Amino acid sequence: MSVDMAVKVLDESVGKVVLIKLKGGKVIRGNLQGFDQHMNLALEQAEEVTEDGQSSSLGTLIVRGDNIIMISPPPS
Amino acid sequence: MSVDMAVKVLDESVGKVVLIKLKGGKVIRGNLQGFDQHMNLALEQAEEVTEDGQSSSLGTLIVRGDNIIMISPPPS
Amino acid sequence: MSVDMAVKVLDESVGKVVLIKLKGGKVIRGNLQGFDQHMNLALEQAEEVTEDGQSSSLGTLIVRGDNIIMISPPPS
Amino acid sequence: MSVDMAVKVLDESVGKVVLIKLKGGKVIRGNLQGFDQHMNLALEQAEEVTEDGQSSSLGTLIVRGDNIIMISPPPS
Amino acid sequence: MSVDMAVKVLDESVGKVVLIKLKGGKVIRGNLQGFDQHMNLALEQAEEVTEDGQSSSLGTLIVRGDNIIMISPPPS
Amino acid sequence: MSVDMAVKVLDESVGKVVLIKLKGGKVIRGNLQGFDQHMNLALEQAEEVTEDGQSSSLGTLIVRGDNIIMISPPPS
Amino acid sequence: MSVDMAVKVLDESVGKVVLIKLKGGKVIRGNLQGFDQHMNLALEQAEEVTEDGQSSSLGTLIVRGDNIIMISPPPS
Repeated sequence: MSVDMAVKVLDESVGKVVLIKLKGGKVIRGNLQGFDQHMNLALEQAEEVTEDGQSSSLGTLIVRGDNIIMISPPPS
Repeated sequence: MSVDMAVKVLDESVGKVVLIKLKGGKVIRGNLQGFDQHMNLALEQAEEVTEDGQSSSLGTLIVRGDNIIMISPPPS
Repeated sequence: MSVDMAVKVLDESVGKVVLIKLKGGKVIRGNLQGFDQHMNLALEQAEEVTEDGQSSSLGTLIVRGDNIIMISPPPS
Repeated sequence: MSVDMAVKVLDESVGKVVLIKLKGGKVIRGNLQGFDQHMNLALEQAEEVTEDGQSSSLGTLIVRGDNIIMISPPPS
Repeated sequence: MSVDMAVKVLDESVGKVVLIKLKGGKVIRGNLQGFDQHMNLALEQAEEVTEDGQSSSLGTLIVRGDNIIMISPPPS
Repeated sequence: MSVDMAVKVLDESVGKVVLIKLKGGKVIRGNLQGFDQHMNLALEQAEEVTEDGQSSSLGTLIVRGDNIIMISPPPS
Repeated sequence: MSVDMAVKVLDESVGKVVLIKLKGGKVIRGNLQGFDQHMNLALEQAEEVTEDGQSSSLGTLIVRGDNIIMISPPPS
């Protein structure tokens, strides 16, 4: 994957709902508005998803990239 | 999101109250005065919000960016 | 190994199933779509493998390289 | 905040007492003598403040910036 | 040791079995195929060695350098 | 504090006994021989100070800067 | 200490036995063969020293600098 590839996958996810797993176990779901080269993410209608499947609304959100383990783009 | 995007979301939040989640679990709320490229934040009328919803006043505050997990701008 | 060597091993694994061990103990298996110079990986048909050998589907996935301990390419 | 802003807040605090929260829970109070671009701080008449409000004198002190969570300048 | 020295020791170990201790306690043994300037290693016939001396086969492996504590080249 | 300031405080401490608090809780006392831009320190007649005030001799010592929380120069 | 000073102390220790304390508590003793600008060390006749003073032989060893807390050169 060239740098373009990571950018490509994230680019295709802009405007769609992504699932983000953070260090420490938090899981965030939100509509991806944008990202930068540090994998910092801007999300809208974000919510934290707890292990029992419940979610609590977080609204608009900036997530620092260095906390991120994985990002799941929406199924294509 | 270009770098401009992260800057844009934070820029639009200057002068408004943001909610910040830090590594280790601390939650800070305060009026965003400024930020830099490390996501270091300058806040006024900051307060620490505890899990039970109580808050203790911290006044003016510089928060180092590398402690930040997420920043919630105010609802637009 | 020159930089080319790490790239070579990963390059040869593109389009194949790799096994990834993450800090914190998570194990991910998925079809490698690409990678970049930070060892960020793009996977398809990814699944998390639990210790008892069970797996749960994760679909398409971006894994941040700084969480990775080891990557096992498929047997050649 | 441009880099100038972080510098500005710290600049205005030189010669005044600041409160510093460190990773791991330590709280330090001292008269800010100077700082650098890593947020390394030089303090005089520094003291460690314990949770029960007691303090123990540390004298002159260099604090490495990468241990710092937050810095509270004095109320203006 | 100049940079050449670290490279020299690793260079002389290519094609030989090395023992690697990772942060977190894992011990890996494998035939060193190559390395890069981050100490990322490519191994073949790698196996994880448990404390009781047992080993489980890992096959070909890329180990990220930032997880490594020590590398033991083969006895010369 | 310009970079010169951190250097100044450490410079003035060369040849004198400094107290160093490390991440993880270790406290080291020793005669500062020198330092570099990473805050790596060279100490002589160093000793580890335990919480009960006892000390064990460490002799000459290089301390890596990234382990350091704070350095107390001698009272002037 | 200029960069030359750290290098000087290590340079003078080449060919001699040094004691190395690692993050996580491991203590290694070995004959220093070389080092580089990351404080990566090459040791020969290295051994791990346990708290009860026992040691187990490790042979030749490369230690990654970022695991190192302190290095004790031999008494001069």
